[in-house]
Amino acid sequence: MLLDQLQNKINSKTKPIGALGLLEDIALQIGLIQQTTQPFIARPTIMVFAADHGIAATGLVNPYPQSVTAQMVLNFLHGGAAINVFTKMHQLQLLVVDAGVNANLSHLNQPDFIHAKQAMGTANYLLSAAMSEETVQACINQGKALVNRVATDGCNCIGLGEMGIGNTSSAALIMHAITGIPLHDCVGRGTGSNDDQLATKMSTLEKVAAFHQLNTLSKEPVRLLSAVGGFEIAMMVGAYLGAASQKMVIVVDGFIATAALLVAVQIDPTVMNNCIFAHSSNEQGHGKMLQYLKATPLLNIGLRLGEGTGAALAMPLIESAVAFLNQMASFEQAGVSTASK
Amino acid sequence: MLLDQLQNKINSKTKPIGALGLLEDIALQIGLIQQTTQPFIARPTIMVFAADHGIAATGLVNPYPQSVTAQMVLNFLHGGAAINVFTKMHQLQLLVVDAGVNANLSHLNQPDFIHAKQAMGTANYLLSAAMSEETVQACINQGKALVNRVATDGCNCIGLGEMGIGNTSSAALIMHAITGIPLHDCVGRGTGSNDDQLATKMSTLEKVAAFHQLNTLSKEPVRLLSAVGGFEIAMMVGAYLGAASQKMVIVVDGFIATAALLVAVQIDPTVMNNCIFAHSSNEQGHGKMLQYLKATPLLNIGLRLGEGTGAALAMPLIESAVAFLNQMASFEQAGVSTASK
Repeated sequence: MLLDQLQNKINSKTKPIGALGLLEDIALQIGLIQQTTQPFIARPTIMVFAADHGIAATGLVNPYPQSVTAQMVLNFLHGGAAINVFTKMHQLQLLVVDAGVNANLSHLNQPDFIHAKQAMGTANYLLSAAMSEETVQACINQGKALVNRVATDGCNCIGLGEMGIGNTSSAALIMHAITGIPLHDCVGRGTGSNDDQLATKMSTLEKVAAFHQLNTLSKEPVRLLSAVGGFEIAMMVGAYLGAASQKMVIVVDGFIATAALLVAVQIDPTVMNNCIFAHSSNEQGHGKMLQYLKATPLLNIGLRLGEGTGAALAMPLIESAVAFLNQMASFEQAGVSTASK
Repeated sequence: MLLDQLQNKINSKTKPIGALGLLEDIALQIGLIQQTTQPFIARPTIMVFAADHGIAATGLVNPYPQSVTAQMVLNFLHGGAAINVFTKMHQLQLLVVDAGVNANLSHLNQPDFIHAKQAMGTANYLLSAAMSEETVQACINQGKALVNRVATDGCNCIGLGEMGIGNTSSAALIMHAITGIPLHDCVGRGTGSNDDQLATKMSTLEKVAAFHQLNTLSKEPVRLLSAVGGFEIAMMVGAYLGAASQKMVIVVDGFIATAALLVAVQIDPTVMNNCIFAHSSNEQGHGKMLQYLKATPLLNIGLRLGEGTGAALAMPLIESAVAFLNQMASFEQAGVSTASK
């Protein structure tokens, strides 16, 4: 049994049983994902999906204007954002995907930028569905295809990040629909709403939940994404599914990334086997999402930035887990005495 | 005011205010330590102090035999221990100090091994003081001198680790004496004691606490270390004091390392200004120590290994904090719009 072999290998290392805590669980998990007692991390990658949300043009749910999505994509491409700094520092590949930013970016031609624009942002879900069910399926297929491509290039560990002004609203609505947790406990400040802005966001999203009868969509992932999803979220759903089918290690970032995972897990519950949870974010709903998924995050340091920054910051811990499994001496190799019983 | 300059610089970065959580606090702290808005981490180092404890020869407080201390020092020098793997992975300098291991290691000659042996382990504090007050002072001076040397070599960030069979007992007694927390809440399983072993450890340490009248030593750091300290712990006290006077960033590891810090802070409370707390260990007293110090740890992943492993694993987060402060674009530089009020 591989599980026993892995556990024995972990226990043989020159340390008390269990003394590396969560890193031991992660080493075991990655061994099981890769079906080997000698797992490895290759070309670790952060893929950031960017898209705009029709609701954001109203200003009802977001303190930053919608134009910030495109401005931040340019910031990513120029290397100035937090995710650039962290991926550079930790030697991670960074890929940025235009899933549907409300700006013409077609002239931007650089190898780390992927054009997959569905439209100039989703429709405003206060008035209609955010996108058609066909578009949902196209996004999911696109996400799968993008991950397949990086897997072919030799990447076996991927963190998914996002950028999209207004996308904490979409994530909160998805969380509410799937988990049944009251909307009030799903909606948070997002990118820095003050008290008044939060109250407006909440009352707006209550209207949206009623308009789309979200309580009837708890087990209808495609219809749910059609109603209140985002292009980046739907593409991440596909990316999770693709990464799991490629037997990749998946590093789950924050609130929006985990909302997309909720949908992916509805479609294929085995995706969870591949997931390592990078952090518990400061966005209030995230901790409850993680509880719902019975997930134990690696970091809890008050991050609430998105972009895959939590995944990038957790990557050294994940690589450390694999390294101890492969590189530490056993008691026998090192000639170290074991404990008395 | 430097504090305001640093906070303004952090707030100007292309992210919502506060969105990098604890990393923002750390960036600010390191800026204040180095008295600059452009701090940097140079030659980050883990220094592991190893020593034996007379009590451990009795087997009353430790499931592993005393000989494991020397065996693990050899493991460090051969590159097979967890701290070797993590320092290599995260490109940290590793230095190992023989502070008083009960084995003749004088023939071992390699640049990362420092000979500072005080004796072949401390005396058994069930029967007498662990060491003389002169030896305590010699250890403190030695610890300061060692840190001064690495600072001269260009290191400005140091994590202190330890190895010493039996040293969770010494740490628990020190914690009890200084904090006044009941001994029962200070004593934990250490390196893997089972229930019977833990009960014996507890009753043994109760005798020790009474024998040395620890309740009278709460404000007598040198006498306390003389009574129940260890050479590695006393040397770490000096290392903390030296690192703070060298304006270094100090990365605080687990239970034993924090017990040594409790003593250092009694001698010079300003040492706390330089301390970043790497993790909250699974050793039960550690969380209470951190509360006592009002410290917020970066990691909480169930580590309980010592060796400075928690400090090594936290180092990438600390380097990430400095990197975002130096490398991220500001809203103005990136042409990104700010939030509405």
